[in-house]
Amino acid sequence: MAPMKVPFTTADFLARAELAYPHRTGVVDEPGPFQDGGLGTLTYGGLAERARALAAGLDELGIGRGERVAVVSHNSARLLEAFYGVCSYGRVLVPINFRLSPAEVTYIVEHSGATVLLIDPELKDTLASVSAKHRFLLGEESDAALLRPGVAPVPWEEPDEDATATINYTSGTTARPKGVQITHRNIWVNAVTFALHAGVTDRDVYLHTLPMFHANGWGMPYGMTGMGVPHVVIRKIDGADILRRVEKYGVTVMCAAPAVVASILEAAQSWEGEVPGRDTVRVICAGAPPPSRTIQRIEEELGWEFIQIYGLTETSPLLTINRRRAEEDALAPEEAAKRLARAGMPAIGVKISISDQGEVLARSNVVLEGYWEQPDASAEALEGGWFHTGDGGVMDDEGYLTISDRRKDVIITGGENVSSIEVEDCLFNHPAVAEVAVIGVPSEKWGETIKALVVLAEGAAATEEELIKHCKAGLAGYKSPTSVEFRDAIPRTATGKIQKFKLREQYWQGLERKVN
Amino acid sequence: MAPMKVPFTTADFLARAELAYPHRTGVVDEPGPFQDGGLGTLTYGGLAERARALAAGLDELGIGRGERVAVVSHNSARLLEAFYGVCSYGRVLVPINFRLSPAEVTYIVEHSGATVLLIDPELKDTLASVSAKHRFLLGEESDAALLRPGVAPVPWEEPDEDATATINYTSGTTARPKGVQITHRNIWVNAVTFALHAGVTDRDVYLHTLPMFHANGWGMPYGMTGMGVPHVVIRKIDGADILRRVEKYGVTVMCAAPAVVASILEAAQSWEGEVPGRDTVRVICAGAPPPSRTIQRIEEELGWEFIQIYGLTETSPLLTINRRRAEEDALAPEEAAKRLARAGMPAIGVKISISDQGEVLARSNVVLEGYWEQPDASAEALEGGWFHTGDGGVMDDEGYLTISDRRKDVIITGGENVSSIEVEDCLFNHPAVAEVAVIGVPSEKWGETIKALVVLAEGAAATEEELIKHCKAGLAGYKSPTSVEFRDAIPRTATGKIQKFKLREQYWQGLERKVN
Repeated sequence: MAPMKVPFTTADFLARAELAYPHRTGVVDEPGPFQDGGLGTLTYGGLAERARALAAGLDELGIGRGERVAVVSHNSARLLEAFYGVCSYGRVLVPINFRLSPAEVTYIVEHSGATVLLIDPELKDTLASVSAKHRFLLGEESDAALLRPGVAPVPWEEPDEDATATINYTSGTTARPKGVQITHRNIWVNAVTFALHAGVTDRDVYLHTLPMFHANGWGMPYGMTGMGVPHVVIRKIDGADILRRVEKYGVTVMCAAPAVVASILEAAQSWEGEVPGRDTVRVICAGAPPPSRTIQRIEEELGWEFIQIYGLTETSPLLTINRRRAEEDALAPEEAAKRLARAGMPAIGVKISISDQGEVLARSNVVLEGYWEQPDASAEALEGGWFHTGDGGVMDDEGYLTISDRRKDVIITGGENVSSIEVEDCLFNHPAVAEVAVIGVPSEKWGETIKALVVLAEGAAATEEELIKHCKAGLAGYKSPTSVEFRDAIPRTATGKIQKFKLREQYWQGLERKVN
Repeated sequence: MAPMKVPFTTADFLARAELAYPHRTGVVDEPGPFQDGGLGTLTYGGLAERARALAAGLDELGIGRGERVAVVSHNSARLLEAFYGVCSYGRVLVPINFRLSPAEVTYIVEHSGATVLLIDPELKDTLASVSAKHRFLLGEESDAALLRPGVAPVPWEEPDEDATATINYTSGTTARPKGVQITHRNIWVNAVTFALHAGVTDRDVYLHTLPMFHANGWGMPYGMTGMGVPHVVIRKIDGADILRRVEKYGVTVMCAAPAVVASILEAAQSWEGEVPGRDTVRVICAGAPPPSRTIQRIEEELGWEFIQIYGLTETSPLLTINRRRAEEDALAPEEAAKRLARAGMPAIGVKISISDQGEVLARSNVVLEGYWEQPDASAEALEGGWFHTGDGGVMDDEGYLTISDRRKDVIITGGENVSSIEVEDCLFNHPAVAEVAVIGVPSEKWGETIKALVVLAEGAAATEEELIKHCKAGLAGYKSPTSVEFRDAIPRTATGKIQKFKLREQYWQGLERKVN
């Protein structure tokens, strides 16, 4: 008698929503049916039907289990359905950042070996040069080519919770993005523990301000679906539009990068009447927490609950969460906000350890399987049975983690990870550049923004504008420096290493933290 | 590079509570330190220390991994700590029903092969005849013998999520109770999904009205601990005492058998002042739902939220849950209550199917590994990859399960499962009994109560009182019939089977359901 061990798969979430919430709104994808790629409003029954139709279409195309399907898209119902139509049948979804340049997208499509590529119609011209065996524009074209409504897809014969469900390319400490393999087990555990710790119920309404390609939208395409929560999709981030949707759809929960939070606060200033969502909305923030003053403004000006989390694409992402506890209710607002500006306590099943060098290490079922076809990088990241986050942190005697120092070569600007090495590589390609160091400096709007320190080659000349333009030609716009400073030399250690923390110092003086 | 697959174990829950809630109340075990076996109030830090001390004591005693430790106890802090001190170190906890007779406890201790036996001091005399290799009274005796404070226990060398964590003996359709093996994975998945669906947050306070030996207290010793929720223990069920604790400790959530709910409603009638917990308490009910009139009374007279679940010891237990959804808020109270009197919708990861014979089947990671040393019973229960609940049910077009017919040979009285076959066996042992059928009949107080239909042997005589007394001598009190009816014959099918549903019919006429 074999014990009943049922593999965790992504299918569990939509299956439950379809069974118990078939007529409830599954996704709201403004601005309406088949305009700009939007599907309007779909019930959970409708979403499940489309996911099956997509799986049947992939069957017809001969796409095998384990084969990769890449999607480059703004948030949309079609991207949401791909999380089920692709993964739940044993194929691997590769959601790609819509801000990447054609060369970057090409690299990811080729490196992942994706045989199917779906492209947002908005990116039709930009990504015209990117090819794949099967390539469709999302929308009427992909629906016609790939959806087989009413055709029963071939079930995944041997579901395996350790199989890779998605590969998310992320900028790490190397020039090339690495493909983070997230398994069905990773996703399942993250989905239920995240929903649990964030207090998700079937009365919630979720707004995706967060791109779904980014750490799979932090697992919300799964967790929220499993709980029967309607997904409200927003394609472009705009504070006033967020407030309008909160009002119109009764949004109760959203995840937001610090820059999004800032745009909401700004929009609230000129909002007519009471800002919607008072006492009902909770906003979940990740990356470096916003300044405690911002946290206080969210709670006071908006009346929204602020929750801070910490995690990485490599951890599905939830590692720690900081939700105000009863013991903190009596604190002065400033003090309470300060305490919320910590990364938080480990989620159930997550072990956090701080290495002798001060690096945050994690052990959990949400940790990635490995980097796609990069065994060395995988072994390094998982050395000793712990995932090495690259972030510096401290654990206080309340069991709360605080991130004190971002892993050295990554800049997070507007919620996007940027490898400083990748930007440096690009600048090195310019003939006038002899030496370069790229760092993050504080920005009110973006948290951090990118600054390049450049030593020009002897006898060569280049302007700041010229170098920025050079970067924009080769990289996604958000990866380009917003400023360039020319230096006579870049200080190095005795062994020739650049000490970025020293370079950063002058720009961060007087600030609470050295990361934003 | 091996993927990071961290075995789910029970240790995760207390580890998190100790890390992040060390000074918060972990358990309140009235009436105070070392009186009647109560430990008073322990912080989560203190609970974790005691659990470690217990594990170190078991080390010293030479109890190996996989070895069984049996505990017969009313709910208490010591029983709660055993869920960690025993299971989290790879040993197997066997929590035994404190209402069982000495012969029944002996059977379980022997059948499970438990080498350690801990007995509630209240049962000192009753269970004097029950022995084991190491046997201690819970309290000062077990503390002295087993607790090694400050000694670091030997860690579980190779934690295994598929290892058995607990064995819970339950009355099924056979005369002898069967040992339900629940694995660490079962417990983990039940704990997080149950907490998620019941909306548990760290602002909750949990009251154990449910015995922890029963389906491991439905997993609450784990789920609530993981969320940092204080456990309030109650040794004896009394409606007024429950209300008092709700008031005193700010209880917000409890599980309760229908009989417990009835006792609370009764106590509320004579409660002075406003009944505590209005708009803050949710009560989770299992087994057959109470009549919809009772549900309405809970919501109107107490102002408590009513949640119905369905599950079995064999399913850890959560299979389905019914919590009022937003779509039902506008319904008339009678209609809403009627809808709450369904077993509910499957939890995330649970698949429910109804067999051609109308039996409820389940597939999930909460389903037992098997029955301890009963391979045939295990194979039968898990035949075809589905767990056979033995209950009859229907799934409506809203995805909600309703239990229509209890598995034929089990009676649930006051929340306890009783095997009618076991009672029949006992009655057969009486020389005057020629034929017997034991059934459940409706009871306002107990949901169901036990009735024996008896055909006397030719020429023999026995009174109702005599037969009840005979049962009480051999069985736990709650298993004895409360009434005996003498018949000339017991109707049978052509193949000689007793059709209990036919025998039951006359007692259930005019009632909504055929089970309570």
